Amino acid sequence: MTNRQIVVANLPQAVLGPEHFELQDTPMPVPQDGEVLLRTILMSIDAANRSWMQGATYRDAVHAGDPMPTYSICEVMESKSPHLAPGDIVAAESVWADHVTRPAHKLQKLPKVQPLSHLLSVYGIAGKTAFHGLLQIGQPLAGETIVVSAAAGSVGGYVGQIGKALGCRVVGIAGGPEKCAFVTDELGFDACVDYRAGGVFKALSNACPDGVDVYFDNVGGDILETTLALMNERGRVACCGAISQYDTPNPTGPRNLPGVVVVKRLRMEGFIVMDFARDDAKATRALQAWVAQGKIKVTEDIVEGLENAPQALIGLLHGDNTGKRMVRVGADP
Amino acid sequence: MTNRQIVVANLPQAVLGPEHFELQDTPMPVPQDGEVLLRTILMSIDAANRSWMQGATYRDAVHAGDPMPTYSICEVMESKSPHLAPGDIVAAESVWADHVTRPAHKLQKLPKVQPLSHLLSVYGIAGKTAFHGLLQIGQPLAGETIVVSAAAGSVGGYVGQIGKALGCRVVGIAGGPEKCAFVTDELGFDACVDYRAGGVFKALSNACPDGVDVYFDNVGGDILETTLALMNERGRVACCGAISQYDTPNPTGPRNLPGVVVVKRLRMEGFIVMDFARDDAKATRALQAWVAQGKIKVTEDIVEGLENAPQALIGLLHGDNTGKRMVRVGADP
Repeated sequence: MTNRQIVVANLPQAVLGPEHFELQDTPMPVPQDGEVLLRTILMSIDAANRSWMQGATYRDAVHAGDPMPTYSICEVMESKSPHLAPGDIVAAESVWADHVTRPAHKLQKLPKVQPLSHLLSVYGIAGKTAFHGLLQIGQPLAGETIVVSAAAGSVGGYVGQIGKALGCRVVGIAGGPEKCAFVTDELGFDACVDYRAGGVFKALSNACPDGVDVYFDNVGGDILETTLALMNERGRVACCGAISQYDTPNPTGPRNLPGVVVVKRLRMEGFIVMDFARDDAKATRALQAWVAQGKIKVTEDIVEGLENAPQALIGLLHGDNTGKRMVRVGADP
Repeated sequence: MTNRQIVVANLPQAVLGPEHFELQDTPMPVPQDGEVLLRTILMSIDAANRSWMQGATYRDAVHAGDPMPTYSICEVMESKSPHLAPGDIVAAESVWADHVTRPAHKLQKLPKVQPLSHLLSVYGIAGKTAFHGLLQIGQPLAGETIVVSAAAGSVGGYVGQIGKALGCRVVGIAGGPEKCAFVTDELGFDACVDYRAGGVFKALSNACPDGVDVYFDNVGGDILETTLALMNERGRVACCGAISQYDTPNPTGPRNLPGVVVVKRLRMEGFIVMDFARDDAKATRALQAWVAQGKIKVTEDIVEGLENAPQALIGLLHGDNTGKRMVRVGADP
């Protein structure tokens, strides 16, 4: 029996392309004592995957020759640990592969929800990132205005829907008229600015007649600079990602920083979803309630097949997904 | 009797120079009902004065033809208000002038400490800005490393001395070997990096073997970018000013923003001293205790004569002061 995996053939110097990946056949891995053999069902595709290629961050850097790391939902096929049994569903820090072995103590057993994809979207990384970043850093109150970039993406859509559930005015920023229509018509945002149409300052200013109180930033760069200029005093910026800066050789900084932060007394704070793990149960409960009440629609963008993972990530960096992107490697059990 | 005042003749497009100011003789102002006539004793000279010329901030913009605004310590000469009497010492939002009239209710009566200059330095804007920004935003704990830019300046010197009093490692950044020697030898910082000598990243890295936990930023620009790169996870940046960006036609942004904020989960927060006015009594009590204990040295840089105020500000922007800069317009009573 063979196994397939995708390695990073070489690290991108600028724009990520298919030439940076290589699909390999390897022997089926064999679990040792304390380990389990996992079958990959779904792999989360995130802009953060690209940032890991830029060097060590909150995790080790990815090097040429490494299997591409990912966060996955897997089924236990064989266990040499008393803590997990075949058929269990787990979350794993894994790699792009059909099968992997992992120490059982590093895995998180998951409930067998239907469909499992919800564990990567609304009840997974995307929903929790939106919930924790918006509530703990953005701290919006009813009546305030929230702006979120990459609004049609995995996290942005949940940020806006949570903001609406809390009674805020919510304005998205997305690329292209189709995505903007999706954000307002499907997700219920009050407005959405198409950054590809140009004139972002004016459009955003018109969409935010009372200024911006909370900015949930997924992109950095020019859009961060523009939104900062429209923020109200004591505004909060939840720094979630900088997708505009990952896939470029010449990142730019917002020229109004730190001046505007001082003058308006803004607070900018970065976070990653694991920082708030102790509140995950709270997040899940709230998200389940909002889904049940019809206030949150679950949006998913599932690409079929391990071999299509590189293109799924490359496309994500160009903004071609709507909703939480993931790759299906195997069927739900 | 005539009065002297200095107006902003025209607004600087780039570097501030003497040509942007004009000394004028005007009639002695006459207080109306509810007003007092004030004699200026000391005027605070701050980098913020320059930022007010860039447009509306937390206060109205300065326009060509306006008397230059300032924060002053004054003596009441004549009163048409029951709330103040001749001889009272007050703090005033005033202008560069020998005499002004002001509504009594807008003035803050001050204790008659000796010398009055301490009300602008350690017990005034400089000391309180350092105290509130460091404690409320930086939140340093003993054993952590604090970096402060413009360390030989008015606020920076107090930031570092407070940090030492709290048991932190304190590293300054200042321009030139004399200032750096002053910062370490006179103020007791653990180290000081001379940014004019170049190689700031390496020098700062060497001076901070355990990384940077708190950065008190008075300058913005390249030094902010460099210090951000050396910060530890969960570091705090107190954004107090951006002196490197005020006097230039082409401000630059830190290119590592927001990436480094996300990856290291930094918190950046801007403030102005008035934001924490409700804790001013606490600040004064602590500063008095540290001065009495010999842990804080009061450093002042007093320029004599109203007519020298433009050069005092121009020089400050080029970093030629050591300690809190002010202009003495009249004698202490």
